[in-house]
Amino acid sequence: MRLISYATETGSRVAGRRGDYYVDLNLADPELPPTMRELLRLGPAGLDRARAAVQAGQPLEPRSLRLLAPVPDPEKVICIGLNYADHAAESRLPTPTEPVVFNKFPTAVTGHQSPILLPAISDQVDYEAELVVVIGTGGRDIPESQAMQHVAGYTCGHDVSARDWQLHKSSGQWLLGKTFDTFAPMGPYLVTVDEVGDAGALEVRLRLNGQTLQHSNTSQLIFPIAHLVHYVSRVCTLKPGDVLFTGTPPGVGMARKPRIFLKPGDLVEVEIEKLGVLANPVIEHQA
Amino acid sequence: MRLISYATETGSRVAGRRGDYYVDLNLADPELPPTMRELLRLGPAGLDRARAAVQAGQPLEPRSLRLLAPVPDPEKVICIGLNYADHAAESRLPTPTEPVVFNKFPTAVTGHQSPILLPAISDQVDYEAELVVVIGTGGRDIPESQAMQHVAGYTCGHDVSARDWQLHKSSGQWLLGKTFDTFAPMGPYLVTVDEVGDAGALEVRLRLNGQTLQHSNTSQLIFPIAHLVHYVSRVCTLKPGDVLFTGTPPGVGMARKPRIFLKPGDLVEVEIEKLGVLANPVIEHQA
Repeated sequence: MRLISYATETGSRVAGRRGDYYVDLNLADPELPPTMRELLRLGPAGLDRARAAVQAGQPLEPRSLRLLAPVPDPEKVICIGLNYADHAAESRLPTPTEPVVFNKFPTAVTGHQSPILLPAISDQVDYEAELVVVIGTGGRDIPESQAMQHVAGYTCGHDVSARDWQLHKSSGQWLLGKTFDTFAPMGPYLVTVDEVGDAGALEVRLRLNGQTLQHSNTSQLIFPIAHLVHYVSRVCTLKPGDVLFTGTPPGVGMARKPRIFLKPGDLVEVEIEKLGVLANPVIEHQA
Repeated sequence: MRLISYATETGSRVAGRRGDYYVDLNLADPELPPTMRELLRLGPAGLDRARAAVQAGQPLEPRSLRLLAPVPDPEKVICIGLNYADHAAESRLPTPTEPVVFNKFPTAVTGHQSPILLPAISDQVDYEAELVVVIGTGGRDIPESQAMQHVAGYTCGHDVSARDWQLHKSSGQWLLGKTFDTFAPMGPYLVTVDEVGDAGALEVRLRLNGQTLQHSNTSQLIFPIAHLVHYVSRVCTLKPGDVLFTGTPPGVGMARKPRIFLKPGDLVEVEIEKLGVLANPVIEHQA
């Protein structure tokens, strides 16, 4: 099943795809909640009920839909750094022996086709294509053997990164460089685990203005998804709708000669096998 | 005005103090929302209305109150590192020339008298007393001259820190060491700005089992509150109920000889002038 969140005047609402259309779950079945986080809180039974609603409900008028990130308001945006060996090497950092965990604030989240806003106070805004894991059932101290039962689905993610702020401010803490507003595009939809199969073998591509600058496969992840979920859950309770960016493959702009950074007018596309294409134009932030 | 959040079976609710009692704002005035974040979203007019409700309403039975953090579910827990020159020196780090910003996840938040859970996977859990700023009116790119208009009030905070995880995991990213569940106690109440006056001249003390281990004054902050609000808002949109830990004075356990780390049975108290005492017992986390 493919689920989206879309914008309305009263807030975000969740819909499921049927053919070329989307069906609002709560309109199709008033027992289902209106938002993605509330839906995920219901666990697998909620997703089963959502599948039935998608088949039964009236399609929405497609032109009226403005997509948000599949989870527009995650409590946590957890990110993994240096999770492809080649990217660690191009970043001139050692291959990690344990996951490298950092994060973005929820205010960084944006959706498919929404603009990435270039802040005037950075001139080194870089791109990073990433597979994003969406947590369904929450938990703490989740054994690795049970971790995949806590995953609801996947989406494409873009870990936009202001390198000057990431690496040269805040005494080396990456947070600010990673968390400018709009620096966490996700979408276009959440694809549930049953439809993806093995998320450890998906092609990942990033295109800048049509040119492929990153191309790898999630089989190259140093720490696989189950280990990441387990590892983070030993520190903090995972909640339904938390999202986990799994790291980027090589080819980022900072490591190229000459270096490539985003500029107004660019179009960035993250394409992941079975998950579609997340496209975002780049414009200047107006303070 | 002093505001608390307290636990009920249907979620957190906000109350205001009158004498020795608390008055539930929404019960006293149904036009007021039930939770702290919703109240703060109403801005100064909401706080004025809350003041009237506190005077008019029926007091709650005090024994029935289980306190939560004043904002039990902040979108952002923003933290400032190395914001007292003496603490930077004891940490063997240079005095910063710009704020050092990191964060905790909302799952780390806990309230007055709730236990700090020591994880089995750390043996270096340290204490840090901090003044916490609570954002009222949100915003982006807030000029420093207007920053204080975005502050609703203050509370005592405890930036619990697993030094082994903070400094030796995640390629130097502090997040995990700072964000174990229960590592962000706050409380007992939010004191609104009108009652605090100059938050840049408050005595700050931390006591471990009755012994004072930190003692300073917020006049020693390297970067004052208005600058911190301005600085962070240039990166991300601040929201009502976001909390900002302003950094800790010298005297942390890691810098002592011999070093002091928290152990089961300890009691930690953070006392800040005009803001009361935040007390938390320390117990083991049961995985």
